[in-house]
Amino acid sequence: MPQVYERVALIGLGLIASSMFWAMKRGGLAGEVVGYARSAETRETAREIGLCDRVCDTLAEAVEDADLVVLCIPVGVMGAVAAQIAPHLKAGATISDVGSVKADVIAQVAPHLPDNVHFVPAHPLAGTEHSGPASGFAELFDNRWLLIVPTEGTDPAATAQLRALWEGMGANVEEMDAEHHDLVLAVTSHAPHLIAYTMVGVADDLRRVTDTEVIKYSAAGFRDFTRIAASDPTMWRDVFLSNKEATLEILGRFTEELFALQRAIRQGDGDHLHDYFTRTRAIRRGIIEAGQDTDAPDFGRGGERSK
Amino acid sequence: MPQVYERVALIGLGLIASSMFWAMKRGGLAGEVVGYARSAETRETAREIGLCDRVCDTLAEAVEDADLVVLCIPVGVMGAVAAQIAPHLKAGATISDVGSVKADVIAQVAPHLPDNVHFVPAHPLAGTEHSGPASGFAELFDNRWLLIVPTEGTDPAATAQLRALWEGMGANVEEMDAEHHDLVLAVTSHAPHLIAYTMVGVADDLRRVTDTEVIKYSAAGFRDFTRIAASDPTMWRDVFLSNKEATLEILGRFTEELFALQRAIRQGDGDHLHDYFTRTRAIRRGIIEAGQDTDAPDFGRGGERSK
Repeated sequence: MPQVYERVALIGLGLIASSMFWAMKRGGLAGEVVGYARSAETRETAREIGLCDRVCDTLAEAVEDADLVVLCIPVGVMGAVAAQIAPHLKAGATISDVGSVKADVIAQVAPHLPDNVHFVPAHPLAGTEHSGPASGFAELFDNRWLLIVPTEGTDPAATAQLRALWEGMGANVEEMDAEHHDLVLAVTSHAPHLIAYTMVGVADDLRRVTDTEVIKYSAAGFRDFTRIAASDPTMWRDVFLSNKEATLEILGRFTEELFALQRAIRQGDGDHLHDYFTRTRAIRRGIIEAGQDTDAPDFGRGGERSK
Repeated sequence: MPQVYERVALIGLGLIASSMFWAMKRGGLAGEVVGYARSAETRETAREIGLCDRVCDTLAEAVEDADLVVLCIPVGVMGAVAAQIAPHLKAGATISDVGSVKADVIAQVAPHLPDNVHFVPAHPLAGTEHSGPASGFAELFDNRWLLIVPTEGTDPAATAQLRALWEGMGANVEEMDAEHHDLVLAVTSHAPHLIAYTMVGVADDLRRVTDTEVIKYSAAGFRDFTRIAASDPTMWRDVFLSNKEATLEILGRFTEELFALQRAIRQGDGDHLHDYFTRTRAIRRGIIEAGQDTDAPDFGRGGERSK
């Protein structure tokens, strides 16, 4: 695969950045990949495991002469970091990010950037419940979606180049506007995460069922929730705070529907329940047909089978 | 492994019964396994795929001379089927079931059984989102929990024999009383299933996000929900109706917690969110340490990795 960028700077060295590094190496997509992390411990780990061709101790050093700078940091600090790197960016460089929320990130970052760089926000729909510099792997983005969210006046050539990088890392790239992105993600990811967090918290609070029992007997359903609820707390706090409106809208609808089902249970309305559960089956079939998952029996056993 | 029962009758030939058949064959645990399903189509499929040593066309024929009869049918019809088989049961036989709810099943079944049989209710904590006679496999119960819920006056010898069968099929067996069982399952399985069903229904209702988008971009979180929400509608309708009180109690607590988190989002209370999310991580670690799952990165990718 041909090299797409001469020099790439990864700001923040967690799951996404480390996976990007290994995926870029796998594809020979970048001449040099430099990395920066705020924590000295993370930088130390990165150096130990060979994450990045060069790990820098300052933001200024990391972005110097970079043709592409990717902000791989929690959504809540995007604006502050953009302000810090702005004076050190190379003319003509592309600035991108991997945040799970787009409208808020654009509002935070765009005002700080000089006119002579290209801002191309993006979001890879890929992840695991693990975090940190050692959690990445080259295959994370293979056959996953990467959504590019162009801002007003984004240069088509800069967008095309970023698209080529992500395609080289295995992703399928689509473009979407920021508001729509944030609503789609509220439905498919943000609200489900909050719900999983909540259910796991409820189990933990319940004194009549011991923690040991919750843990031992979580064979069905609950275990999938605990996996989701193990995701990085800082990242998710920022996601909810910065995609507040869309998340609250979806949660409002969710609560309405849940109340209707609770009522059906209380009143013994089996037809309502059966109809509802039959309808949800069809969505699952759609996902399998769309190639986003397989129908191999796997209910909470995925980890085990991949041994 | 030594044979545990001379003749076993499986009533209902779905995921659990078909997995029991293959697991009993694997272990040489039963002399003959006969099966019955209400639908002629299911019986036909069972005969075609060699499910059961003998498939019977009537309940009476299936339970005749059986040393163990296992009711593998939706919870809502347990009482009716118990009434039908009662006159045909062999003296000294053990009657068991695999229902996800126990107090209600005991209340339905026990009154119909003659005094000269042993009733030993049980519940295997294992499953996939698939159903039907062709969905079973011998490994389903390996290293999964089987909860035995003895009723008043259950014969310890009959309980021990059933325990030996399930251990032979790979399960870890524990005993629990019916009320506690139903509460533990409401937390770890029933409420999470209802919540997953609800979230998938919400996504389907939302007109501003197309079904195609929900399906395409369901990389994180939501896909785990759709897997759960694809489970058998009849089975789950009956579970909720027959474990009404415990399920509604847990859903009430869930709603309280969800409202508190929604409020934190609305008010921008990041500390509340971060603390909550940090606490839920610990439960996940507990589950991994308890050997109920692995920490291999698998977020919604389980099916894919097991190819």
